[in-house]
Amino acid sequence: MRILGIDPGLRNLGWGVIEAQGSRLSHVANGILHSTGDEMPRRLLSLYEQLTDILHRFAPEAAAVEHTFVNKDGAGTLKLGQARAIALLVPAQFGLNVGEYAPNAVKKTVVGVGHAQKGQVEHMVRMQLPGVQIAGPDAADALAVAICHAYQGAAATKLDAAVRRASA
Amino acid sequence: MRILGIDPGLRNLGWGVIEAQGSRLSHVANGILHSTGDEMPRRLLSLYEQLTDILHRFAPEAAAVEHTFVNKDGAGTLKLGQARAIALLVPAQFGLNVGEYAPNAVKKTVVGVGHAQKGQVEHMVRMQLPGVQIAGPDAADALAVAICHAYQGAAATKLDAAVRRASA
Repeated sequence: MRILGIDPGLRNLGWGVIEAQGSRLSHVANGILHSTGDEMPRRLLSLYEQLTDILHRFAPEAAAVEHTFVNKDGAGTLKLGQARAIALLVPAQFGLNVGEYAPNAVKKTVVGVGHAQKGQVEHMVRMQLPGVQIAGPDAADALAVAICHAYQGAAATKLDAAVRRASA
Repeated sequence: MRILGIDPGLRNLGWGVIEAQGSRLSHVANGILHSTGDEMPRRLLSLYEQLTDILHRFAPEAAAVEHTFVNKDGAGTLKLGQARAIALLVPAQFGLNVGEYAPNAVKKTVVGVGHAQKGQVEHMVRMQLPGVQIAGPDAADALAVAICHAYQGAAATKLDAAVRRASA
């Protein structure tokens, strides 16, 4: 199962692709997209086109997006919402299911505690994807979301199997 | 010049198409799109596909979007941001310039005062587009944004002409 993780942002959109066989993970690629253009419609179009290109190149079978932090700054939240729309729309256009995970859920799955520091997340991502070269903090977060989705998926599959065994 | 106005919303996205020849306006079509599906990615995809269909059907040459009101409710603002991203992205994909207008700017242009009541906007829209059947309040707002853009465009064109005459 190939999983695309996305950490949405208008200026920097982190992405990371991993391959998951049960709980065995390997790194495929990661990077950061930057929106170009002065006006919002062009910036969104730029992100849309770059993310579409990532989907074409790496053909993931599932996607997971970090659920944007909602703060008290309305204008900032609005911008994040716009970037997040692109992150949700493009995988849906490719027919993928898109998991959404709050930052704390990602940290809890990847690091073991919900309030881990950023450095800890990157450290655990490196541990679980040996040899990975990480393009930056946003790409590390995107890889962490993908890892979170892989574990959730593996857990769901084990649960399914257990339920099937129990009812067989 | 055919102008598409959009009042973005996740549940109800109002749209209206008008034809503007200088300050002479006529109504083409209006309606309200509803996002379908339980999950956000599918809802955004549903709006995206419906709005793309509107662009194909009516082939506007310009678009104008009401600049979403940013309130104190972070979750609501995030949703509005997501709907607004679709409203900005789709016209940009068709190569259109997209004007953005704050609700007060729309009211000031259409009604003459920035703090007009909703009923006043709809009344003025009916006055300026004789015979129009309006699909609902969100469609009335969308037509008002289109009218606002028509007047701004006409004003800009007159200014251009004046500048050209002055420098000839």
